[in-house]
Amino acid sequence: MLNITRRQFLSYVGAAGGSSALLKTSLALGMMPEDSYSGPVTIKPADPGNKPTALILGAGIAGLATALELEKAGYHVTMLEASFRAGGRNLTVRNGDKIDEMGNPQICQFDKQDNLFFNCGPARIPGHHRRILHYCKALNVPLQVKANSSKLAYFHDEKSLGGKPKRIIEYHTDVRGLMSELLWKSADANQFDQLLSEEDVAKLMKFSQAYGDLTENGKYIGSGRAGSTTDRMLEHPTPHAPIELKAMLDSSFWYGGLLGAEVYDWCEPLMEPIGGMDSVVKAFLRNLQTKPVLNAQVKKIFNSDQGVEVTYEQGGKLHSVKADYCFNNIPAYFMAGIENNFSATYQAGLNSIKRGHLFKIAYQMKERFWENDGIYGGISYTSEPVSQLWYPSHDIHAQKGIMLGAYVWNPKFTTMFENMSPEERLKAGAISGEKIHPGYSKYIENGISIPWARMNHQMGCGMRMSAEDFETYYHMLQKPEGRHFMIGDQISHHSGWQEGALASSEQALEQLNKLLGAKIIQGGAAHVS
Amino acid sequence: MLNITRRQFLSYVGAAGGSSALLKTSLALGMMPEDSYSGPVTIKPADPGNKPTALILGAGIAGLATALELEKAGYHVTMLEASFRAGGRNLTVRNGDKIDEMGNPQICQFDKQDNLFFNCGPARIPGHHRRILHYCKALNVPLQVKANSSKLAYFHDEKSLGGKPKRIIEYHTDVRGLMSELLWKSADANQFDQLLSEEDVAKLMKFSQAYGDLTENGKYIGSGRAGSTTDRMLEHPTPHAPIELKAMLDSSFWYGGLLGAEVYDWCEPLMEPIGGMDSVVKAFLRNLQTKPVLNAQVKKIFNSDQGVEVTYEQGGKLHSVKADYCFNNIPAYFMAGIENNFSATYQAGLNSIKRGHLFKIAYQMKERFWENDGIYGGISYTSEPVSQLWYPSHDIHAQKGIMLGAYVWNPKFTTMFENMSPEERLKAGAISGEKIHPGYSKYIENGISIPWARMNHQMGCGMRMSAEDFETYYHMLQKPEGRHFMIGDQISHHSGWQEGALASSEQALEQLNKLLGAKIIQGGAAHVS
Repeated sequence: MLNITRRQFLSYVGAAGGSSALLKTSLALGMMPEDSYSGPVTIKPADPGNKPTALILGAGIAGLATALELEKAGYHVTMLEASFRAGGRNLTVRNGDKIDEMGNPQICQFDKQDNLFFNCGPARIPGHHRRILHYCKALNVPLQVKANSSKLAYFHDEKSLGGKPKRIIEYHTDVRGLMSELLWKSADANQFDQLLSEEDVAKLMKFSQAYGDLTENGKYIGSGRAGSTTDRMLEHPTPHAPIELKAMLDSSFWYGGLLGAEVYDWCEPLMEPIGGMDSVVKAFLRNLQTKPVLNAQVKKIFNSDQGVEVTYEQGGKLHSVKADYCFNNIPAYFMAGIENNFSATYQAGLNSIKRGHLFKIAYQMKERFWENDGIYGGISYTSEPVSQLWYPSHDIHAQKGIMLGAYVWNPKFTTMFENMSPEERLKAGAISGEKIHPGYSKYIENGISIPWARMNHQMGCGMRMSAEDFETYYHMLQKPEGRHFMIGDQISHHSGWQEGALASSEQALEQLNKLLGAKIIQGGAAHVS
Repeated sequence: MLNITRRQFLSYVGAAGGSSALLKTSLALGMMPEDSYSGPVTIKPADPGNKPTALILGAGIAGLATALELEKAGYHVTMLEASFRAGGRNLTVRNGDKIDEMGNPQICQFDKQDNLFFNCGPARIPGHHRRILHYCKALNVPLQVKANSSKLAYFHDEKSLGGKPKRIIEYHTDVRGLMSELLWKSADANQFDQLLSEEDVAKLMKFSQAYGDLTENGKYIGSGRAGSTTDRMLEHPTPHAPIELKAMLDSSFWYGGLLGAEVYDWCEPLMEPIGGMDSVVKAFLRNLQTKPVLNAQVKKIFNSDQGVEVTYEQGGKLHSVKADYCFNNIPAYFMAGIENNFSATYQAGLNSIKRGHLFKIAYQMKERFWENDGIYGGISYTSEPVSQLWYPSHDIHAQKGIMLGAYVWNPKFTTMFENMSPEERLKAGAISGEKIHPGYSKYIENGISIPWARMNHQMGCGMRMSAEDFETYYHMLQKPEGRHFMIGDQISHHSGWQEGALASSEQALEQLNKLLGAKIIQGGAAHVS
């Protein structure tokens, strides 16, 4: 749009002190990393006069996406879902919704308000999860930034720093300061003279100073980067007293590299669909011609040269359905209980996938007390069984809010919570919360909990294979057996994420394309090795 | 709400492996830092039969807040504003709005859409700016999270790493890795045996490993924390090749401690009013009985024992207005040109406040190309004159977006941009943008620029005092001279932030309370020392 002449360009480069030679090199280099994602797999279009049929088992994210892509290619799709609802672990509950826990069904008691919801499963999307972002964009799921990290939230460990919660920003700043001080000392003592020139050692000392906010003599004495103990709007700031090096080393927070902020899937900014993660499910359903057959529990899968036949139970009766292809999203550890004629190796592969355990509590809080403490989203980390507290970052300054009062994957604690009644869990979570936020319990109006390993039709989440089983079976399971394709995050390298589920669907459809490319007559048998 | 018995409490503490003794200690400690902010100053209520009068000069944030608090206390307020609009540097432009630059008036050409706006002044609010957050809550200004930092955005320096833009997450991860490796080496070489026990040195090595994601032998070889060069959804991740230690030391990014992420005012999560920062101004105006008198330029301020008399020009005519108190929000460097009878010391104090320079460009982009690159908000940093590129984090996946194409405070570059025509600035900014995002120019539909030091009625922003002048004058200027109070971010320790402006208002009103507490008859003379 802007008409930049070469002369203007060069005179500007000159004014900016840049080198046009350097610049030309840079422009010629093609500096940006290649973007490897170019949208979903395009399936070879079906013959409209002889539509192939596909069966999708399980209306989770992988099943929904597979169905959508197959319909786009002209397939006739049937989707069977064991639960009373579609979405799988993409589950958002609001007032009146059911958490279908085995033996402990719970009804959500939140007030009937749009902003009071609980994402029981996936709750955040990073900018590099291109597949889920593609579907959010293509299917018009409105997104907003979700604060996954708040530097004003807390670290808390009963056994560290006297059991006092510590603002993440203070701990983070002190750790940088203390380690920079050590580095400065080492550089000053010529520790690196074998490795670096004198000039570079001097740079290293300058680096340490900048990185850790050290004094001119290389001392860390606290830093304004973590704020001030006095009113910095009116007076010179006074940094907090830093923790001792020994106390830092004795603390637990640095295990895992200062936790959340460094995990690639949690790299800021994260996003969430406005109004709840199940907007993704609703968007798929809106765009599918096929609605899932609900309450349909698969009992038998029979693979043949002509296609796949599935028997399912619905309303106490058995039904049978045949299709040219079957995409199976059922948790693999259920397959041992479903009659099938798969090869022994394929069965062994399915059996190698193990259930994961994850537990969450959500509380309706009558006041957003965390906002009065400067916390507008993010996560506090604690050694308490609840492990994490999440503060909502949407609907800022509303009266009430839904807080995640527990996010637990430590097996010791998931087992403890799984063995409790829903009522006991809420009480236990409240006791934990009190240690980070005194007075926590008095804000709780009601709550609901979800132990994923006790959920009907799921019985787990975040599936795992042993390293050995992975070597033996993982790539086999990525390929179809006959016309039966396994899908779901379980068939990805990234279980527990919608992006993994979509990647599994993508690679299954690539396999389908291969099958079709093998030029075997549609409707006939094929095996891709 | 939850009825937790002592027995349940203790049994839970047992199950969690905690110590009840420790717990009791923690609860008794009152672990949370004191919250020192308890809302605005309550001014001594006025006698309704004999309302005191107040004059506010300048309808910027400090003026608006002062007016609101005075009205709440029953004062009769008159507000004079030199510009055609209220808000001061809180300025959001949309289609058709004017940027009132001296000699270069510009009209915003953005499409007429709610999501296409440009916050020319303040644009973000951290969770610890309690004063501005108080007003947002009290005056119903809806907020959303603003991604101020994106790890997928870029660092770019012509002179570092071959001039190639580098994803922030890669650079950040490599720096942690490389410095942790050095620390590990030093610990391994007993560099710290005077300082730490053998056990603590072992912990330090473990710490280095966790912090930098080192191998078991203390080597940094790249890290999955910065993603993978292969599809990590389907295969084992392959970390990027780390930069060399020497290249890291030669690079410029670590000056200032890896820039933005460590500045306390930019600590995540930041927030922004939905639809533009000027929602704050609109909210004040909605809640004020007094509307500002616009286009009213102050010519004379006369302080007397009975009050303050101000002469202003409007529509070519001079007007005079008297009040019991005057709160003066006019940039102090204009005061030398306004006739007054202040003491020589007070005048010298006002003269000690110097103009700051800041420059911004905003472009309307016909596509949100950054989202295709995984960037959903945050800032890229560059050695180019434009200094920073900001990506909007609101209205994700919309067709178009307003990008900040320059955010400049380096005097070398602000001067350069100030001396250009608006058209030249847009072209120069486009050339810079190309170096970070090849193809950048072709997305630009139109743009607008703001050099704050050339704005009518402002002529600067982010005022500064020398350290010496600060010692001499700052605390004097926080106190009234007679019944004349200086306000504005210029009379705070934190100029350039709305929070500083509000702090100045707060302390002026505290001074007013002192004056009133001196039990001098209202309407009579007073001097607070």
